[in-house]
Amino acid sequence: MTVTYTAQVNTSRRISNFLRLLFRWRGSIYKLVWVDLVIYLILYILLALIYRLLMNESTQRIFEMIVYYCCKHGSMIPLAFVLGFYVTIVMNRWWEQYTCIPWPDTIAILISSYIMGFDDRARAMRRTVMRYVCLCQVIVFTMISPQVKKRFPTYTQIMEAGLLLESEKAIIEVLDTAFPHYPKHWMPIVWAASIVIRARRENKIRDDFAVKTIIDELNRFRGFCGFLLYYDWVSVPLVYTQVVTLAVYTFFVFSIIGQQWTINNECQVSNHVNQYFPFLTILQFFFFMGWLKVAESLINPFGEDDDDFELNWMIDRNLTTSYLIVDEMHQEHPELLKDQYWD
Amino acid sequence: MTVTYTAQVNTSRRISNFLRLLFRWRGSIYKLVWVDLVIYLILYILLALIYRLLMNESTQRIFEMIVYYCCKHGSMIPLAFVLGFYVTIVMNRWWEQYTCIPWPDTIAILISSYIMGFDDRARAMRRTVMRYVCLCQVIVFTMISPQVKKRFPTYTQIMEAGLLLESEKAIIEVLDTAFPHYPKHWMPIVWAASIVIRARRENKIRDDFAVKTIIDELNRFRGFCGFLLYYDWVSVPLVYTQVVTLAVYTFFVFSIIGQQWTINNECQVSNHVNQYFPFLTILQFFFFMGWLKVAESLINPFGEDDDDFELNWMIDRNLTTSYLIVDEMHQEHPELLKDQYWD
Amino acid sequence: MTVTYTAQVNTSRRISNFLRLLFRWRGSIYKLVWVDLVIYLILYILLALIYRLLMNESTQRIFEMIVYYCCKHGSMIPLAFVLGFYVTIVMNRWWEQYTCIPWPDTIAILISSYIMGFDDRARAMRRTVMRYVCLCQVIVFTMISPQVKKRFPTYTQIMEAGLLLESEKAIIEVLDTAFPHYPKHWMPIVWAASIVIRARRENKIRDDFAVKTIIDELNRFRGFCGFLLYYDWVSVPLVYTQVVTLAVYTFFVFSIIGQQWTINNECQVSNHVNQYFPFLTILQFFFFMGWLKVAESLINPFGEDDDDFELNWMIDRNLTTSYLIVDEMHQEHPELLKDQYWD
Amino acid sequence: MTVTYTAQVNTSRRISNFLRLLFRWRGSIYKLVWVDLVIYLILYILLALIYRLLMNESTQRIFEMIVYYCCKHGSMIPLAFVLGFYVTIVMNRWWEQYTCIPWPDTIAILISSYIMGFDDRARAMRRTVMRYVCLCQVIVFTMISPQVKKRFPTYTQIMEAGLLLESEKAIIEVLDTAFPHYPKHWMPIVWAASIVIRARRENKIRDDFAVKTIIDELNRFRGFCGFLLYYDWVSVPLVYTQVVTLAVYTFFVFSIIGQQWTINNECQVSNHVNQYFPFLTILQFFFFMGWLKVAESLINPFGEDDDDFELNWMIDRNLTTSYLIVDEMHQEHPELLKDQYWD
Amino acid sequence: MTVTYTAQVNTSRRISNFLRLLFRWRGSIYKLVWVDLVIYLILYILLALIYRLLMNESTQRIFEMIVYYCCKHGSMIPLAFVLGFYVTIVMNRWWEQYTCIPWPDTIAILISSYIMGFDDRARAMRRTVMRYVCLCQVIVFTMISPQVKKRFPTYTQIMEAGLLLESEKAIIEVLDTAFPHYPKHWMPIVWAASIVIRARRENKIRDDFAVKTIIDELNRFRGFCGFLLYYDWVSVPLVYTQVVTLAVYTFFVFSIIGQQWTINNECQVSNHVNQYFPFLTILQFFFFMGWLKVAESLINPFGEDDDDFELNWMIDRNLTTSYLIVDEMHQEHPELLKDQYWD
Repeated sequence: MTVTYTAQVNTSRRISNFLRLLFRWRGSIYKLVWVDLVIYLILYILLALIYRLLMNESTQRIFEMIVYYCCKHGSMIPLAFVLGFYVTIVMNRWWEQYTCIPWPDTIAILISSYIMGFDDRARAMRRTVMRYVCLCQVIVFTMISPQVKKRFPTYTQIMEAGLLLESEKAIIEVLDTAFPHYPKHWMPIVWAASIVIRARRENKIRDDFAVKTIIDELNRFRGFCGFLLYYDWVSVPLVYTQVVTLAVYTFFVFSIIGQQWTINNECQVSNHVNQYFPFLTILQFFFFMGWLKVAESLINPFGEDDDDFELNWMIDRNLTTSYLIVDEMHQEHPELLKDQYWD
Repeated sequence: MTVTYTAQVNTSRRISNFLRLLFRWRGSIYKLVWVDLVIYLILYILLALIYRLLMNESTQRIFEMIVYYCCKHGSMIPLAFVLGFYVTIVMNRWWEQYTCIPWPDTIAILISSYIMGFDDRARAMRRTVMRYVCLCQVIVFTMISPQVKKRFPTYTQIMEAGLLLESEKAIIEVLDTAFPHYPKHWMPIVWAASIVIRARRENKIRDDFAVKTIIDELNRFRGFCGFLLYYDWVSVPLVYTQVVTLAVYTFFVFSIIGQQWTINNECQVSNHVNQYFPFLTILQFFFFMGWLKVAESLINPFGEDDDDFELNWMIDRNLTTSYLIVDEMHQEHPELLKDQYWD
Repeated sequence: MTVTYTAQVNTSRRISNFLRLLFRWRGSIYKLVWVDLVIYLILYILLALIYRLLMNESTQRIFEMIVYYCCKHGSMIPLAFVLGFYVTIVMNRWWEQYTCIPWPDTIAILISSYIMGFDDRARAMRRTVMRYVCLCQVIVFTMISPQVKKRFPTYTQIMEAGLLLESEKAIIEVLDTAFPHYPKHWMPIVWAASIVIRARRENKIRDDFAVKTIIDELNRFRGFCGFLLYYDWVSVPLVYTQVVTLAVYTFFVFSIIGQQWTINNECQVSNHVNQYFPFLTILQFFFFMGWLKVAESLINPFGEDDDDFELNWMIDRNLTTSYLIVDEMHQEHPELLKDQYWD
Repeated sequence: MTVTYTAQVNTSRRISNFLRLLFRWRGSIYKLVWVDLVIYLILYILLALIYRLLMNESTQRIFEMIVYYCCKHGSMIPLAFVLGFYVTIVMNRWWEQYTCIPWPDTIAILISSYIMGFDDRARAMRRTVMRYVCLCQVIVFTMISPQVKKRFPTYTQIMEAGLLLESEKAIIEVLDTAFPHYPKHWMPIVWAASIVIRARRENKIRDDFAVKTIIDELNRFRGFCGFLLYYDWVSVPLVYTQVVTLAVYTFFVFSIIGQQWTINNECQVSNHVNQYFPFLTILQFFFFMGWLKVAESLINPFGEDDDDFELNWMIDRNLTTSYLIVDEMHQEHPELLKDQYWD
Repeated sequence: MTVTYTAQVNTSRRISNFLRLLFRWRGSIYKLVWVDLVIYLILYILLALIYRLLMNESTQRIFEMIVYYCCKHGSMIPLAFVLGFYVTIVMNRWWEQYTCIPWPDTIAILISSYIMGFDDRARAMRRTVMRYVCLCQVIVFTMISPQVKKRFPTYTQIMEAGLLLESEKAIIEVLDTAFPHYPKHWMPIVWAASIVIRARRENKIRDDFAVKTIIDELNRFRGFCGFLLYYDWVSVPLVYTQVVTLAVYTFFVFSIIGQQWTINNECQVSNHVNQYFPFLTILQFFFFMGWLKVAESLINPFGEDDDDFELNWMIDRNLTTSYLIVDEMHQEHPELLKDQYWD
């Protein structure tokens, strides 16, 4: 489930707002960084012990030379720069993906408004169209999200959830065999469109205008689903991710060596502090690794991070709400009364 | 209420334009930063006193070493960089949220144009649709804004404000019990759509075309409301906010120590000035903390900052204007006269 | 009037293109910066004179210490960074505001195409709708632009300009008294919509379709006007502007002191040049102050800068063109002839 | 004509891709920079000769002092920063302008689809509407592009090109006299709309729906044309361009002096190389001047640079294609046959 | 085929996520950089050998001077800055190009919904329209993508693939001869529009509304195709690409020389490490060259890189799916049954 904290920062007048956010664990930087940090510290201490206990003097001289070299050159790659640009790109994509998730509410309101009649056939039409719309979304979600895939590993589970009927499953599976490499999420939308056309022919929809409106909206829904697939297929180019990852990890390899305390290290300031604990180094680690982790946790917003969107919740919500709008609430509204300001 | 100052900077010819803005208190940097600054200074002075009065010489030597270490390393985290990128992201979201607030004026004009008739039923239809539109907005606002929540803590207050009738409240509460985890802001819109369909059936709306136009607009309104919820659920990822906050506060912890005056501090220039008052340090504090506060006050534009949008004003304005357009001004216009340039 | 120079830079092949732009006065950096520069220089020289003539030796020592301190630390605030981000934000808003200004041409063409008839009543309808559209724009402009406010301080002047009739003024003023805090720019648009509906009822408009098209466009026009108000209400947050302004002016206070020539100033290079004239300092002043002035002159594009948009010209142009399209040119077009390539 | 090189960089696997682009002349950095470079070098050499040959020793001392001063301070203006932000802004505008150029193809297809009949009058209607659309574009192009202005300096040339008839020219010229300060590009569009309305009345267009579609598209076309004018009127603010230009040229004035070889220049490293040839300086010149030239050649994309868009080609193409679609191809299509996969 | 790795990074909790990405070859930085790296190393070693083995002492002194000069000045061009801005621009264009690729699904659903009848003529109409839509796309793809050009070098291959009939090929070729300089991708769309009009006349389409919807969508499709051509014609300006390429390669020429080990090189730290292997230099090479390669592989997303989009797959998918929707699935849908939640 997404980590929401807006309510905690609705005003910035008191001192503790952003500070308070530092004391959270779910979705926090600590949770993301601590494993890396532990490994980093183990390596650092190991190296320090080797230098102080196991090396003879000539090896120490060579080691000191390497330390000096790493210390001097560690900052020659503009880490802040490349991270700044990369994270901005990843965040933009992350938010665009959110805005691409289609909600079936619009279609539900249109269906409820335009497909008239309280008989079983009309009800079945309304419900089936909405079921197809939700089904289309679920098929797309199983392709892009491991959490949804876990819930619906095959069509059988989708059927059990009431989103798919036996006969429909059979049709999809036939086509899956015939064209295994093409996604099939558009099929329920095509069926839904056919039902709409049939409803018009059976005069359950009163005008051509309504048909156009509904079919346009179905197409828009399918278009957004296609876009979600797009984002999944075409990630941020691997090269860019590799360049950034290499830069960050290299920086820290250099820093594990370069921040070692050695006798007479002219590169470091204040050997005495470093001799006991590399405060600064740990801070830098937190900062740069945390920045990289921002990218890492945003690059797939439909994954299983704390921060990721709860698609399973959404699937249930969409089906429930859709049925509610097109069936229970179909053309119902509270009695028309004079309001308080009626003069 | 938003802090508006555009009128004061409409020309840049005179010298004092942006300078004049420095002498404002409401929504100003001073108001946002002063508490932090006072705490910062107290800590700084405390430390200075401890060093000068309470420490013996050997402790002073250790302290000086730590000061030197902090002074040298304080600037190794690229604060300006990370703040620049972060604030840009927060500001973009802030403005996008503004542009997502829907105004009911368009719907009001459509309703007034298309739902004909001066009888009570037609009037009730027009007024009720507009009331539902405003109600939808109010429900969303109570979810995202603490100032609106304060005004309308429960449905009872909304009812008292004349936006909700007893019968409607009952229906919503039944559904709230049945599906507690799903927001209900779309319900009034579904009702509004049903009323529109009924108006068409009773021939108060003359053509199918108008029905489509109104329902499309109702859907757009609901879509924007949904988007506002989106922005509330999915904040800027917590990790990013934590990274930035940590960076800024760490910088100032380092600077409280590193900017201390000590005898023979080779890191600092001009010990003599620092000995009396750390001008520079305070300036840096103002600058970086102010930049962070920009983000802090923008991250929730519907909160209670000076800068935040006055949603309560908007709720009143929307209801008043809506009733005005669909009722008092319904298909009224001044007499058609020849204008001044009629030849 | 906007300062246009695109025609002068249509090719970059010759050497003098951007260079030539340096020799312009209207809307130039010189015009914007010179007052600040003069004040800056006066302060600089004053301080230099005080140091050289009025100070005794011990005061000079203290002064030199302060100079050294300022010289060393003046560049510790990342001015370029914060200006780069801030100006980008301001420029984006500036351009978005331009693109929000609605033009009535589209409505004029629709009105001319769809409201048929050459009788006085049809003419009055066409002209009145266009007058209302222009009126809506003028009301908004008086709220956001001091130049338009100067031309139309009250409704009386708008009436004299032929945009408003006596009877209409009376209605608006009644509502202004009833609801003083809500803008009224949408009222003429509501009237215009009513006239369109009446035209349909009197069969001057032949189909419902045209009604929808015109009303949609009227709504779009009102929407854009509302957006202009939005930009006016919700400026770039005051805090951000203050942070940037403080940073720039602080930098120059530091530089007035820090760039002073003193004996044995180890911070400055080449004392000898500075002793006579602080070239560099003036250049930096031009550069950073100029960059800030870019923001200052763009933050309100409807003000009275050289660079600001000529809204008064636009008001006249819109009324003239509107009347031309809906009246003189109403359903007129040159005779249909065979063109040159007719085979 | 635009400089296209995408085909040369369709894969990045081989080593030579971007490198190969370095060996091009048309639209290249060399072509844009060489004049400036030559002047720069001449000034540089002149100064070097004066220093080495014409100065006596005391003048040389003063000169060396100035050189030292310029060398030390040359880099104090953050050139890379301001160029990075400025070029990004200019490039965004440049691309947006491209996307604003309207193509008449959509209108042509609509006209061909909806205005029925093969008689001369129907043909004349179809051809005339398209001619007006192209005419509107040409009038706008003459206002924004010197290359088009050169081809069509007055309406006479437009008439000769077959885009304007004698009678139409007369009407426009009358209005040009009456309202000299308002652009007239919208007039042909108003005429086109009138023709469409007439076609509907003569039943050449069968439904009101088609009328709306065509008129909407005509309005969209005019809207884009208006946007092109907008971009032309409202350039990147002169102040910003001046700030950037000043920064770059100042930098090079400083560098002409500061990079001079002098005896005992402690600012420069490796005097010996500089003594013979200032490699580095030339590289920096190429880099920064090239970056500035990117902006210079993009600021007016309709000018006469190598990189600029070939509007004259487009004018011819549009007229030809329009006539082709609405006349020769009017409601023609190849015979309907069974395709290869017909089962 | 695009390199997809989103599934591998769906959670960032474990340590190895981005790290794991480093061990991939397809589309990786190693694959893109290794040739350049080998050449770089060969040159580096060659120079080192020449210095150590072939030079006499006086030549060595000169060489050392040059090394010192290059070492000192190598970093004076702000590489990170210009790369950051350039890559951001290229990536934005890259993604925008993806979003411009039109999919025919929407048109297929509209055609299937609106063109009624199961007779051969209706079937032929539906299939032919879709064929024309796919044909338009293929023609555009052959113009922008070398991989598609390889598959369809002439119209003959397109004909063999069943996308073009003999008669249609003849028509296009006639026009290609008449107007060789204008692209012809819009022709099939014009034909498709004509077929739609004919279908309306033969009453296979029941209402004018549907005609409008289809023709609008055909126009939108053609518009997107035109946009793809746009992106191909108007690349990122050559000057910008040259500036960046020059900057990167110059940097490495400088670094080949400047990172050489020489006796008593005061510019380098820790000669001893460099004497054996220039670790740092190789890292910098990887980093900056990799960043440049990001741009290089994205500048033409329809080329033949590992990362590039598989247009040939898409062509097949589109034709298959289109026929499926408009023919096999034409107005078919699974039987309407009561769903699981039917109460």
